[in-house]
Formats: sequence, C-alpha cells, structure tokens
Amino acid sequence: MNDSHRHGCNGRTAAQTPSDPHAAGDPAALRDRIAQAVRDVRATTPLAQSFTNFVTINLVANAQLAAGGTAAMSFLPDDVIDTSAISGADYINVGTLLPFYKEALPQIARAFHQSGHPWVLDPVAAGIGATRTAILTAFKDYPPTIIRGNASEVIALCDMWGLGRQDDGVSGDEHPSTRPAGVESVDDVESATDAARRLARHMAPLSPGGQAAVAVSGKVDLVTDGDRIYRLPGGSALMSKITGAGCSLGGVTATYLAVAEPLTATLAASLLYNRAGEIAERLSDGPGSFQVHLLDALWNLTPEQVAASEIVVAR
Amino acid sequence: MNDSHRHGCNGRTAAQTPSDPHAAGDPAALRDRIAQAVRDVRATTPLAQSFTNFVTINLVANAQLAAGGTAAMSFLPDDVIDTSAISGADYINVGTLLPFYKEALPQIARAFHQSGHPWVLDPVAAGIGATRTAILTAFKDYPPTIIRGNASEVIALCDMWGLGRQDDGVSGDEHPSTRPAGVESVDDVESATDAARRLARHMAPLSPGGQAAVAVSGKVDLVTDGDRIYRLPGGSALMSKITGAGCSLGGVTATYLAVAEPLTATLAASLLYNRAGEIAERLSDGPGSFQVHLLDALWNLTPEQVAASEIVVAR
Amino acid sequence: MNDSHRHGCNGRTAAQTPSDPHAAGDPAALRDRIAQAVRDVRATTPLAQSFTNFVTINLVANAQLAAGGTAAMSFLPDDVIDTSAISGADYINVGTLLPFYKEALPQIARAFHQSGHPWVLDPVAAGIGATRTAILTAFKDYPPTIIRGNASEVIALCDMWGLGRQDDGVSGDEHPSTRPAGVESVDDVESATDAARRLARHMAPLSPGGQAAVAVSGKVDLVTDGDRIYRLPGGSALMSKITGAGCSLGGVTATYLAVAEPLTATLAASLLYNRAGEIAERLSDGPGSFQVHLLDALWNLTPEQVAASEIVVAR
Repeated sequence: MNDSHRHGCNGRTAAQTPSDPHAAGDPAALRDRIAQAVRDVRATTPLAQSFTNFVTINLVANAQLAAGGTAAMSFLPDDVIDTSAISGADYINVGTLLPFYKEALPQIARAFHQSGHPWVLDPVAAGIGATRTAILTAFKDYPPTIIRGNASEVIALCDMWGLGRQDDGVSGDEHPSTRPAGVESVDDVESATDAARRLARHMAPLSPGGQAAVAVSGKVDLVTDGDRIYRLPGGSALMSKITGAGCSLGGVTATYLAVAEPLTATLAASLLYNRAGEIAERLSDGPGSFQVHLLDALWNLTPEQVAASEIVVAR
Repeated sequence: MNDSHRHGCNGRTAAQTPSDPHAAGDPAALRDRIAQAVRDVRATTPLAQSFTNFVTINLVANAQLAAGGTAAMSFLPDDVIDTSAISGADYINVGTLLPFYKEALPQIARAFHQSGHPWVLDPVAAGIGATRTAILTAFKDYPPTIIRGNASEVIALCDMWGLGRQDDGVSGDEHPSTRPAGVESVDDVESATDAARRLARHMAPLSPGGQAAVAVSGKVDLVTDGDRIYRLPGGSALMSKITGAGCSLGGVTATYLAVAEPLTATLAASLLYNRAGEIAERLSDGPGSFQVHLLDALWNLTPEQVAASEIVVAR
Repeated sequence: MNDSHRHGCNGRTAAQTPSDPHAAGDPAALRDRIAQAVRDVRATTPLAQSFTNFVTINLVANAQLAAGGTAAMSFLPDDVIDTSAISGADYINVGTLLPFYKEALPQIARAFHQSGHPWVLDPVAAGIGATRTAILTAFKDYPPTIIRGNASEVIALCDMWGLGRQDDGVSGDEHPSTRPAGVESVDDVESATDAARRLARHMAPLSPGGQAAVAVSGKVDLVTDGDRIYRLPGGSALMSKITGAGCSLGGVTATYLAVAEPLTATLAASLLYNRAGEIAERLSDGPGSFQVHLLDALWNLTPEQVAASEIVVAR
C-alpha cells in the first residue's frame, strides 16, 4: 500500500489531480477498444452466466440479450461451475441471499480463481447482515475481475477487505459506510474514488491477465483500473426509479468481459447504459415505459454511438 | 369478542348497517391524511423492505419505486432484521415458500413485534399446504399491522387464528374458505367483511400505536380498521390479468405505512391502485401494455387525484 | 423399440418421409380441436400450477393469464401436491435449481404419476450439472405428459433416459448433445426429430389417457405425439432476444393441457406463440417493446386466428 493511498477507503488522496482528458495516453485507442467490444458482443453473442438476486434476475437476462449476448442463471455450485466452462465471464450479485449461499458462493469464487475464469461482483447492500459480510469477506482471496456497485457498497467492501483502515488514521466519522445504507447509496460517487482504486489494485494481481476494474455508479459514474480514473457524465435520473438498473449494468459488464479486458468492458457497459438511459428518458412517460425503452435502446445503439461518449480521464 | 361478531369469519354481522358517508366523523380530515401520505412518500422516499414471493418480486419493487418509495428485498433473518432498523415498514408475502421459511418467518415476525416495527402481511393462498398453514398460524401472536388479501385468504386466516369459530354455531357449509382457492379468490369481497373486522380487532392491541387495518381486494375493495368499513369502488378488471397487482399493492401499502398510520396507509395505497388501474386500462391494448401504463400512472398521479376518490363509509 | 428408430436420439430415421399434409387423417378435425382449446381456456380460466425457474417465473404467469388461464407458482412438495388437486395441469421447469429440489422434484413427479395428474416438463439445460441430471433421470419412471424444449435439450433427455443408445451403434460424434449447450440450443430442430418421437413413445403408456406429446422449439417448431410429426413454420427471431419465450410457452402449454389432450394442447400453445410473435415483431422497436406486445397479442388473438395457422404434417 503506497503513501498516496493512506487516507482510507473514502478519503481523498493526493493523487486526485484535476481531470485531464489527455492523461489516458491514447484516448482514440480507448474508444476503438470500446466500439470493438460492443461490435464483438453483437457478432459472437457470448454467454455470460449469472448468480444473481431474485428481484432483478429477469432484467439482468433481458439486458444481456438486448446488448447482444446470451444469458444463463444458476445457483447450485455444480451447475455454475459446469456452465462456467462454456461462459465467457460470470456475474455474481449478493442481493437476495439464501442460507446455502454462505458455502456456495465462496466455493464458486474459489473455483473461478483456480480456473482463471473472469467474473463481475455486484456487492449489493455490502455491510448489512452477518451472512452477506461473511460471503463478501471470503471473496478477498478469490476476488472478482470487476466490481460494480454504488458508492456506499464500494466503500463498505474496501473497509471489509481491510484495504485502507489499518494504519491510515482515519476516524470512523469519515467512513459513512458504517451507516448501513440498504440498497441505495448514502454516499456520493466521488467519496468512493479512493476505495475504488484500492480495490482495483488489490484485485488486479489476483485476476486473469493481471488486470481489474471497479465501477461506481451514480450521477457521474466513475471507473478505475487502479491507476487512472474515468468519469462518465450523463445517464438518466429515472435509472433509480426502476429496480435493477445497476444489477443489469453489472450483468452487461460481464457480457462485455466475455470479449474484452476489464477496463474496456466496464467502460463499454457503463457508456451503453448512460446513452440508453438518456434515450429512454426522452421517450417515456414514467418508470414503466422507461424500462421498455431502455431495453429497446440497449438493442438499437450502435458501437459508434457508445464509443463517442464523453469520458473525462484523470490520474 | 363481542356479540355482534359472533357470526363467524364469513358471516354477516348485525353491525353492517347501510353505508353512511358521514359516519366517519370527518371525511375531509381523512382525505387530507390520504393526500399527505401520498405527498410524504414522494418527499421522503421511505424504504419499505419486502420478504415476498419470486413471481412478482420485481413488480413489488417497481411499484414501490413508482409510488415514490425505495425498495429492498431479503429472505435471511439476519438480513431482514438488520435492514428493518432502517426501513419504515416491512412487507411479508407467503406466496412461494422455501423450506427454511418455516423457521425464518416466525422468527422475523417475533423480532418485528419486539421492536415495534410495523409490517404488512399478504396471506397468499392461505389454507393451502401444511407449511404455509404453520407459518400463518404462528403469526397470530406476532401479528402484522396491516393485512391485504383477497376474500378467500382473509376468511381462511380468520378461521386459522380461531377468531370466529369457537362458539358461533356456523356450519362448515357457510365457510367457503374450506374449499382451497389457490391464489384466486372463490369468495366475494362482502363475504369477508366480518373476517376482516375480526382480524383487525385482534391485531390492533398487539400492533405499534394500537392501530391496525385489513384490506380485502376485489371488485369493490373493502378496508377496515376493525371499527368502520370503507368501500372503494372503481379500479380495472385487467388488474386480475397481470400477476402481482395484489402483491404490489401490498408492497405499496408498506411504503405508505412508513409515513402514515395503518388506516390511512391502506386507503391511500388502495385508492392509488384503483385510479392507476383505470388510467392504465384506458391506455392499454392488453395485459402487457396495461402493466407498463400501471407503473407510469402510479408515478404520475397527484396526491389530490388520489384523495378525491370515492370512499363509501359504513359502521 | 422398433427398428425404424434404431438410429439414436439425434439420428435421422427411415420413418421421416417427405411432408404430407393429408397424412393426419382429418386436418379439419385437428383445427377444430385447436380452436376449441383456445376457446375453452378463455371460457373456463383453468388453473395451471408451475414449479419453474426464477428468471422467467413472472413471464410464465403473465403469459398464462394473457392466454386466458390462471397461474399459481409453488416449490414446496406439500404446497405443490395440495394445489395440484385444484389445478388442471402442472408445469415443471428445471432452469434454476436449489439444493432441496433434488428430493422435491422426483417426489412431486411421483405424486402426479400416482394421481394421474398431467404435467409439462421443460428440461432447461439438460446435460449440465450433476443435480439436474439426477432430477431429469428420476423423471423417466414418472414421466411428464408433454415435454417442451429446444433441440439440444430434447436430444440430451432422450440420451439420459437411455431411449436410443443401447444398441444403436451411433458414435459419440453424432450426438451433439454431449457438448453442453447452456440454455441455448446448439442443435437444429430437425436433428431432434427422432429423439422427440422416442420420448413421446416412452411417455404415452405411462401418461394419463395413454397419450403424450413432445415439442421442439426453434426456427420451425416441431411437435410429435410419437406417431406423426407436425412442423409449425413462422414465429419471430426476436423470441430468442427476450428471456422466457420458451419457458412461458411451456407454461401456456400446461394451461391448454388443463382443457385438451396433449397433442392438441401442444399445437395450440405453439401456434398461439408463433402468431403472437409475428404480431409483436411488427409492432416493436426492440426486445423491450416486443415482450409488451407479445403479451397483448396472446390476449387478443382469436381461436380462429390460431387454428388457421399452417401445419405441415408428416409420418
């Protein structure tokens, strides 16, 4: 853990300089990779398997199909591990837990780790309930390739994995994640910047290909590979008025992870969602029609439209 | 149990006099409280947590969001009890049971009772299956604050709790609930009037604030606080052609219960649903578009539109 | 097992002669039975109970309601067996398994067999996972009345039940089902013709009324009663871009099985779906609106429109 990150999971770090769109080395190359990921999913309909909550499981599958992939959902370790041999990436969401998940989920994460299988974690409601805490804690040693959550969840997971609390001198008051937040974030996206970076840096060396990414969803989404910070403006406020916008974004991130490396997959999925949300908001009369138009827009957006999105890059 | 209710759960009682819109004391005050509840939910986006069935769990969450609240769904006691500390009210629906619910649900109801946490029960398919009967029976001593069901379910639950069978001399033939009804009511709303009142009177002294309410959904919805009977005409026949109209009404009732006392919460939710159903029916071409328009209407209806609804009051 | 079927589950049999629309004896009588089934469901709103996966459980129920039936979903044997006494037929889908299903599902199938209760099996992902294989294998002795699956699933189930592998001399290479396919078929419909026929012939003598049917969904759906082969052209490619088109077709097949014999029920449901898919595709802008219009079309199609569909009959 280097000095510039000693401020703890929700602290601001010295490394957060003003945004610099030229810092990413070659933004054009990044856009090409994003467009290619969108194109590859449409061309190859990759399978991404999900172990996800019961509330939004249908939307996760429908969003993966609308993005151009295919979907399979399973909960039994034998089933999940068998299917992972033919899935390009997996998605695990800890939203609605059943008792047997306490053993099943760590077993599955360990199997993915051993086979080098990439997966996306959605740490829904991190910090609430002893069972969820036990499961999420167990993931530390067999971590996902990508995490997608809201700010409170990302901060809570960073704390849970002990990535920034040991000797950083940050008092409890500065850790809003100690207030349980339910499934809604009580923290804003920016407050999770450092936690997101610490998580990505922990995950990368343990991940297939040595790369990882963390996405924090919110008003302006934030994505990091542990090094640069990418801010993605736009999207729609109606996203929080349907259940599963975040979960299905996580599922679609797994779909892209089946064809691209973690940073590109995370950016492509988040950008696709922001653009689709804007289109759906314009066409809808409320959250019912918003969800219908969101799925249609995921289906109709072109690779070029997704890749042309504004991306603000900072170190 | 007083004499006027000795006719059993589905009997007619002497107390059912012709409807009298002036009997409620101050109908204007009632409408003000209803409008205020609708307004308060929109202003404070309260969290209502659900332990509900897998068929309609998505619609329950989306309806709570469309009404202006927030949603969280859980099944593990540690999770549910932790989250109830930050939820304004809970919703429990016994539609699709898993084996561990037999211990989990009574444990949760007991915890709610001990902490004075208000909750809404949807006794789906009451009377079918030994496990469901065991769970619903256990709730008698830790009862919900509000029950919302169809006529058959309300009658079955009243029988199950022994609130009107002991010495009322009613023969089995007069108890249609002894014919299992599945999830559809085989009884009409009016036949459940007395059962609804008995249930509310049993629940009130055991509930936070000493108040309770029971809603019987049907062609003309019926609501009672154990004293007065409120009949709510209108709604749409298409409500029974989508799955989860009743469940999601139960969830939205919990959303209102997070900001209002039981009678107001129950009336506000039922009226919101009736008005939304009428709008959705006018705009739809079948049950697919009906559900989309229903969610949009839940989102767009004003507090004044909800409160202006016809309410027929009787003692 | 007769000679003409010795080519194994995915082999071509000598019995597959060129299609002959006059081979069915009386096609007009078949169309009358189909129209009558559609009419009877609308008139009697029969209950069909489902034990189905968590991904598409909502669409299964909504499709059954849109077709004119009623729906109930359960997972506990006591609940399922109790409710089967009042349901006209049941639907079992092995998509998302939980640990207790390993005992529950064979117990339920045995109970249905003993009471002569008709049911539809959707063998989702047959061939993947030890638990699923154990469950599907156990069904051999208490088989469903109807199977509806994709080609890979039907071939895998035929293999699993040992209906064509013993002495047929077919090498592993000719059995594509040994490549696990996830929930998407890797085989085309025609390759499952013989497997479908063998399954139907195994099931019929063990089924109520001595009749059974198998439907293989795909570009051109195939239905067989073990004797004739019915090919149903049409439908929409968007069916595979929403999750649950196949599952909900299975559920609606159970709805029709509540009022008709297996062949008529299977044909009526598949034809209703093909016509509804065509209408929905014309009206939709993507998979979100497609699902909405599909449910509306299931509701609006007339018995005559369904029965007028093209049916290509072969022996």
